[in-house]
Amino acid sequence: MFYHDPVFIHSVQQTIEILGTLAFAISGIRHAAARRYDWFGGFVCGFVVAIGGGTLRDVMLGVTPFWMTSPMYIVCTFLAQAMVILFARLLRHLDNAWFFFDTLGLALFTIAGIQKTLVCGHPFWVAIAMGCITGSAGGVIRDLLLNRPPVIFRKEIYAMASILGGLVYWLMTSLHVNVAVTVVVVFVIIVAVRILAVKYHLSLPILKDEELKKDDSQ
Amino acid sequence: MFYHDPVFIHSVQQTIEILGTLAFAISGIRHAAARRYDWFGGFVCGFVVAIGGGTLRDVMLGVTPFWMTSPMYIVCTFLAQAMVILFARLLRHLDNAWFFFDTLGLALFTIAGIQKTLVCGHPFWVAIAMGCITGSAGGVIRDLLLNRPPVIFRKEIYAMASILGGLVYWLMTSLHVNVAVTVVVVFVIIVAVRILAVKYHLSLPILKDEELKKDDSQ
Amino acid sequence: MFYHDPVFIHSVQQTIEILGTLAFAISGIRHAAARRYDWFGGFVCGFVVAIGGGTLRDVMLGVTPFWMTSPMYIVCTFLAQAMVILFARLLRHLDNAWFFFDTLGLALFTIAGIQKTLVCGHPFWVAIAMGCITGSAGGVIRDLLLNRPPVIFRKEIYAMASILGGLVYWLMTSLHVNVAVTVVVVFVIIVAVRILAVKYHLSLPILKDEELKKDDSQ
Repeated sequence: MFYHDPVFIHSVQQTIEILGTLAFAISGIRHAAARRYDWFGGFVCGFVVAIGGGTLRDVMLGVTPFWMTSPMYIVCTFLAQAMVILFARLLRHLDNAWFFFDTLGLALFTIAGIQKTLVCGHPFWVAIAMGCITGSAGGVIRDLLLNRPPVIFRKEIYAMASILGGLVYWLMTSLHVNVAVTVVVVFVIIVAVRILAVKYHLSLPILKDEELKKDDSQ
Repeated sequence: MFYHDPVFIHSVQQTIEILGTLAFAISGIRHAAARRYDWFGGFVCGFVVAIGGGTLRDVMLGVTPFWMTSPMYIVCTFLAQAMVILFARLLRHLDNAWFFFDTLGLALFTIAGIQKTLVCGHPFWVAIAMGCITGSAGGVIRDLLLNRPPVIFRKEIYAMASILGGLVYWLMTSLHVNVAVTVVVVFVIIVAVRILAVKYHLSLPILKDEELKKDDSQ
Repeated sequence: MFYHDPVFIHSVQQTIEILGTLAFAISGIRHAAARRYDWFGGFVCGFVVAIGGGTLRDVMLGVTPFWMTSPMYIVCTFLAQAMVILFARLLRHLDNAWFFFDTLGLALFTIAGIQKTLVCGHPFWVAIAMGCITGSAGGVIRDLLLNRPPVIFRKEIYAMASILGGLVYWLMTSLHVNVAVTVVVVFVIIVAVRILAVKYHLSLPILKDEELKKDDSQ
């Protein structure tokens, strides 16, 4: 059947990667715009969201950061920047589309992070952590560059969708499920968890430590 | 005698490492709680304090980050998180204990950083810098994630205890003192300097540059 | 002629490197002073401006960070710190000199970043990005440590001078121009662009995305 064709699978994967990278970069550039950064600042923020997580992963794995091996990620960031500058108003009407692409990106980058870490010979718990870093760390570095507390530490189920996907990946691999099936299931789970969390306003509990807060204000 | 037994030495070292990691992680999680971060944000802040400095060191040394080689550090962070969530009030009564464990951690991680850097073939001045980075950089990254100026740049003698220990390590090694003796002396010095600095409110001088300040406000 | 003498060229290069490192470190320490950081905080901020960009580059290239191979950069930072502490008032009268040295540093570090990346076998577009990172990333990390939005994302032509220089480097290399000529031309272009941009208050356009801003304030 057509979905067994490696060329087809590769095309699907590459399409998701491009859409995900675009969505990640657009998120960075638009947040930079809200901070009134200039074109250079916007480009850096967009690029950092798109490649920050994977770069952190690759540096810790001791391999060449992936964005240095293909100009695709810089080109996508330029494209995202042009879209934000030229079609700011139009982009707003597509917010749901970008949210969806961003979620596809999260799922794809998580899976890519897990697989690359396993290929490097690390155990599964490292791979799950790396999957989460690949999907989420770019947004954290963006928030550092925007001088504000990282949004994924306070709102939203984002990284948890990635970790949950990683745990399912590990479970299915332990049960010797076929890799292709595992990848599809994990992909769907990450996307579903993220969408349901946003739809039903699910979030993690807030930490409470009133005593320390009192200390701080003294 | 019992303290010459390598098994005994190894147990002592491992106990300090676990207590130090716990103390570092707890400090990150409690500060995240004071910022009202959620469980995920707290975990990341705790983990970053525990492993951030050593990871920065290992990446610059070109070796695999230490936390990827043993699940001990992630397990300690989970434990620390559970303690903060379940026993917040109780933890407060143990503040002195955690301060002490944190100081033990600083001393141990400094020495570990120095030794690992020397093993990698770098000169002593690099090792002293790496010892300081191993002990202190995690707290700096924590403060970046909390969106506030790093506390060790403004108050407290913290990194200086680590650097002083490094200088003594270098001096004693130059004088061909036995390694075991050197390690114990350096350990005691770092712990003593940190405790005395807190007890007597010792701190470094503040930089003065009024002219630039005037410039900034113009 | 004297300027063909490799010893002369090397001396010029090393003089610029020392002056540039001093200027970079002084900028970090003075901004730390404006934030009332202590001596340790000032030293770290100065050191980070001087070595941050090149370290990020080297970690991504997979080579030992350059500052670990020569004590020159730490010594320059100590010197810069001593100058700020002892001659704060005097330094102010030399602001134009330091601005000029800082600009020389930007040009030299950009070229060094490009050349090192090409030597490591990467394509030119990676080298241009690395040249920009070498010259600019230290200042960005400084601003993170000062807990403020990176200044090069909002004002000033700084990184763009570096990127423009990189593009000229690529163009001239494609046209098989002699390397020495290329380096001198690129150096002069980066210095000239930066000085002219400051003199005529040139800056990049600010990003506009009012819709997202409205969202944020809701």
